[in-house]
Order: sequence, then C-alpha cells, then structure tokens
Amino acid sequence: MSNFKEKLIHIKAFAFDVDGVCTDGQVFLMPGTEFVRAVNIKDGYAIQHCIKMGYYVAVISGGSSEEVRKRFANLGVTDIYLRSSDKMDNYEDFRMKYGLENSEILYMGDDVPDLPILKRVGVPTCPADASDEVKEIADYISDKPGGKGCVRDVIEQVLKLQDKWMNEQALIW
Amino acid sequence: MSNFKEKLIHIKAFAFDVDGVCTDGQVFLMPGTEFVRAVNIKDGYAIQHCIKMGYYVAVISGGSSEEVRKRFANLGVTDIYLRSSDKMDNYEDFRMKYGLENSEILYMGDDVPDLPILKRVGVPTCPADASDEVKEIADYISDKPGGKGCVRDVIEQVLKLQDKWMNEQALIW
Amino acid sequence: MSNFKEKLIHIKAFAFDVDGVCTDGQVFLMPGTEFVRAVNIKDGYAIQHCIKMGYYVAVISGGSSEEVRKRFANLGVTDIYLRSSDKMDNYEDFRMKYGLENSEILYMGDDVPDLPILKRVGVPTCPADASDEVKEIADYISDKPGGKGCVRDVIEQVLKLQDKWMNEQALIW
Amino acid sequence: MSNFKEKLIHIKAFAFDVDGVCTDGQVFLMPGTEFVRAVNIKDGYAIQHCIKMGYYVAVISGGSSEEVRKRFANLGVTDIYLRSSDKMDNYEDFRMKYGLENSEILYMGDDVPDLPILKRVGVPTCPADASDEVKEIADYISDKPGGKGCVRDVIEQVLKLQDKWMNEQALIW
Repeated sequence: MSNFKEKLIHIKAFAFDVDGVCTDGQVFLMPGTEFVRAVNIKDGYAIQHCIKMGYYVAVISGGSSEEVRKRFANLGVTDIYLRSSDKMDNYEDFRMKYGLENSEILYMGDDVPDLPILKRVGVPTCPADASDEVKEIADYISDKPGGKGCVRDVIEQVLKLQDKWMNEQALIW
Repeated sequence: MSNFKEKLIHIKAFAFDVDGVCTDGQVFLMPGTEFVRAVNIKDGYAIQHCIKMGYYVAVISGGSSEEVRKRFANLGVTDIYLRSSDKMDNYEDFRMKYGLENSEILYMGDDVPDLPILKRVGVPTCPADASDEVKEIADYISDKPGGKGCVRDVIEQVLKLQDKWMNEQALIW
Repeated sequence: MSNFKEKLIHIKAFAFDVDGVCTDGQVFLMPGTEFVRAVNIKDGYAIQHCIKMGYYVAVISGGSSEEVRKRFANLGVTDIYLRSSDKMDNYEDFRMKYGLENSEILYMGDDVPDLPILKRVGVPTCPADASDEVKEIADYISDKPGGKGCVRDVIEQVLKLQDKWMNEQALIW
Repeated sequence: MSNFKEKLIHIKAFAFDVDGVCTDGQVFLMPGTEFVRAVNIKDGYAIQHCIKMGYYVAVISGGSSEEVRKRFANLGVTDIYLRSSDKMDNYEDFRMKYGLENSEILYMGDDVPDLPILKRVGVPTCPADASDEVKEIADYISDKPGGKGCVRDVIEQVLKLQDKWMNEQALIW
C-alpha cells in the first residue's frame, strides 16, 4: 500500500471501464432503446474537477450507449471509447495520443476483459466488488463497489497527494 | 451533539441540496430526456408536513431537472433553485427573502460545492455518505445516507423538538 | 410475539400500504408520466397465492399510479384504493364489504398516515424500516424492509399457520 | 459441499430462472410497456463465455418480457422459455433437446414455482435470498443474492473445475 501511494505521485491520466466501475453493473432493459445505466454524481464531480486540473481521462466500454457518451462528454471527457472489442487497443491509443508512460496512468476495471490493461498499466485498481482475477492483480482495491464512489475514491487520492483536490475551482461545478 | 440539539430550537427554515441528499446520488441515463432521479417518499412526507407547520423550505441543485422542480413544487416547496452555479447566491437569496438569520436555517449538503453554505449556515448537516470534507465541518451526520431518509431525519428532529411533529395535520397527506 | 402468532390464527384478510411497504419508498421521476415505482416479485407471488386460497386482499395508497392499479389487478386484487386522502375510510369500506371483524385483518403500513388504521386493525405490522411512530405500535416488525419481501413475510406466516402455504396450487403462477 | 463440488464435474448445461435469480426480484412499473427489469453485467459475461466454451444454457421465466428475450439472445442463449406456466415442461424440453441427463444440468431458482425442477435436476442451486423452501433443498446456496452475481458464481465454479474459465477467449466479449 505504501508502494501504491508512491506510485500515485506520477499519475497524469486516468482510464476507467464503465459497467461495474462507473455503474454498479446493473443494466435496465427498457423497450425500444439501448440499455439504461445509472452513474454516480460524486464520481462525476471528481471527473470534471480532475479534467479542470489538467489530468487526462479516458473511459473504455464494451457497450455502445450514446447516453454514456453524452454523460462523459458533458463532464469534459474527450477520450471515450465505446463498442470496444479489444480494450488494450483503446488503452494504447489513449496512451500514445498524449505521449504517456504506463507509469503515469491509473486504470480501474472490474472483470476479466480488463485483465490485459490491468497487467500493463502503471497503477491497476478495482472496485470492492471486482471479480477475483482482477482483485488478485490490482495494486489497490477501493472500499467502494462499482457505481458507489470507487472512481471518486481513486481520483481524490491522486489529487490530494498532488495538492490539486481542494481549491477555488473545486467549489464550482 | 448537545450543542446540535440546542441549535435546533432556533430553526425556522430548511435548505437541501438535491443529488446525494434527496437522492442516493445515482442518475439514470435515459435516451431522449434529462437525467432520471429517484426520491424518497418518507422524505417527501416530512417536507410537505413541515411546510404545513409554517417552516420555509428551499432546494438548491446544480442540476436542471424539471421533474425535480415538479416533485418539490407538489410537496409545497416554493423556493426551488435549479442550474445553480453558485449555491451561496441562492442560499443568500432564500435567507434574505424571508429575513432569516443564519442561525435560523438548517442546511444539508453532501459534497465539495456545498462547503461555502455549510460554513456559513447556522446548522450544517449531511447524510451518512457525504464526502470527507463535508463530514468534517457538519454539526450533525445523519445515520441515513442520501435518498434513504436523511432529509426526514433532520426535519423530524427539529419538529419534534419544537412540538410540531405529531398532530392532527400529520395524519393527512 | 407468541401473542402475535395466536392472533394470526384469525386472519382472513390483508391490507397493505403501497409506498414503503410494497416498494422500498423510492419513486422515479420520469418525464411525461406519473411516478415510476418498483415492486417485488416474491411479494407478488404471495399475494396471488393467498387470493387463490380465499383470503381478501386490499391495497391502499395515497398515490394515484395507474401502473400500481394494473400490477395489483393482475395479481387478482379487486380492492385497490388509490388517491386515498383518508386511509381509514378505505379500510372501513374494505372491512364492511366483506363483513370482517378488525381481528380478522392484518395491515402493514410504514409511516404516520398509517397510524389510525394500525391502531384499529387486529394485527398491525410494519417493514423493518418503518418510521419510529409506526414501529412503536406494531405487533410485528418484519426483518425485511419495504419492497424487499416484507409483504411476503407476513402472508407466508399467516398461510403457514393456517396450513394454506405449500400445496398443489402453490406451484402454479 | 464436497459432494456439491464432485457433482459439478459432470455439468454440461445450465438453466436459470429469471426474476430473483438474473434480477434482484424488482420489476419497474413503467407506463405503456411491460415490466422493466435490471440484469447484471458480470452474470452476462459468464453466460456468453460458457456458451462459447460449449455449455448449453436455458432461461425459464413465468414472465413475458421481450426485452428479457433480447438480452439473453444477445448473450448467445438459444433456449429461452417465457410465459412459462409449467416450468418442468420447459426443463424437460431443454433436457431432451440435447439428450442430457439430470445429473449433467445445474439449475438455479429462487422461489416455490422452481421447486419441482430443483427436486429433479442434478445440481439444484439458489441465490442467497431465495425463499426458505428453496434453500432447504438446494445443494448450494450462493453468497450472492439475485441479480448481484449469483449466476456468475455458479458458472464460474463449474468452469474453473473443468478448466474452462480463464483462457484466450475469456478476454474477448
């Protein structure tokens, strides 16, 4: 864990899986439309604030929800990968675009398709209710499950450590 | 805490943040419409009852949901601030409108944008799952999280102390 | 509690509040329509089975949801009181219609507007998360909160005691 | 339990009830449409992966939701029984279609209408929040309740035991 805290000093970018990380893993089956998902406002606050502070943020999802795209675009996220069949491709695209080292990126994922990225990224993290395989290789397991503030948890830790959390701009959303 | 109870004697008005206080912080991403939120019926009962008993109630939200406006209007709330970019402005507007002292207002908020009001208001309170910064300065942390009765909790405490909770009018909704 | 079990021997009818009893107390604010509520399938199974076994069932709600009416009508409930402003009137209407004694009815409610019925009915019960006033006068507090099986709990207890729970008809829904 | 693990060696097929197993038992009452249900993404991952690995999967529901049919069809399930009035008929249809022995099938159900299948199937299982009658006869009670990963739990156990869980194909969804 001390190792985890030290690694956070180098973080310049975040990448998040959507289902089970930004959501609690439930999808609502509504007639005549795509899956309906619920996201968390405290996570949203942290995402828009860290973008204002200059961090890069990507979301990578196997799903295809335009509503998910709109939500994260409204928070200021410009790198939104949907319909991802190979998440590693998207991760590398994001990493190269900003010339980032693996050690400068924190990733949070919750299930088997996230394993390749979690093995490569500098700081692999997961929600409290991630699958066993993911928990085994994560540097940090949040005490919050998916959709209940796990995204906020890791962003807050990085920004506090880098003295970017509480300031004038933090009060405006 | 004894201090908290004493302060409640002076309360004439309540102001509430919406997301994470009146809701559990989830927003549902439905196609073709604004965010869908869920509110709590026991909270609603307390709000309409305290308005009948003569208390002033405001809700202040950074969001822009017309459905939120309708819900609180139906409960009898007349001071509904949506699309709030500076919550303190709205708080002061509400306070001045009724000539209230800070010590006569109880506010409940759950996150960083609520900090300025929480520092000024007479009785700053928060849900069980508020962010750390908010918990540090709250006079009272409800044992209920957002959307699960934290609003009801504080209204009930004030009205019980002022002998306005259970009476003939309490039985009619 | 032994008293409670003895009282159950006489039960011929059930009456249920809706919000906070048949639901968890959340209402979803959807644009262009009434509140959306979620009900529990295990509760529904118990309601339709006890009607098949000859029990009378009423639901009494202050709300006005046609979807709630449809749901309970589909389960076989014929006495559905919506837009109730005085729940006691509805309770007495239901009681007189079938010539029932108060001692033959079990009622479950969760909040202040349910108090008059709870004080009159033979077997007053409530969910685990009922308000304090209700818990104080209930003969039985379910270990299940609203919407999570509290309705099923009391129906199952009565039918088991009267040997009407498990039989051929129980397997068909 | 050791007995349970031994039985899993023979499993070639899975059959699942929907409400209370693939969902948490809540149905949302939306105007102008059928019930809306929420399903779990981690369960979905396990279902599509086990089909890729050659297992047979059926879902059997008393409900009639076309959205449920679409969801499971998209995961690769070809044997989807809706509007089931006699679940045993559907179970036998599924069993005969693939020439399966009862001992080669794992079934998960949560309530009274599932009892006949649970008594016949080789490996009867249930979620953590199944009804008492079901828990009494289940070989295995998941530590996860309905809709929260109980389906994933049993699929994962079988595939791990048969060395079909983690492999190249597991990384692609």
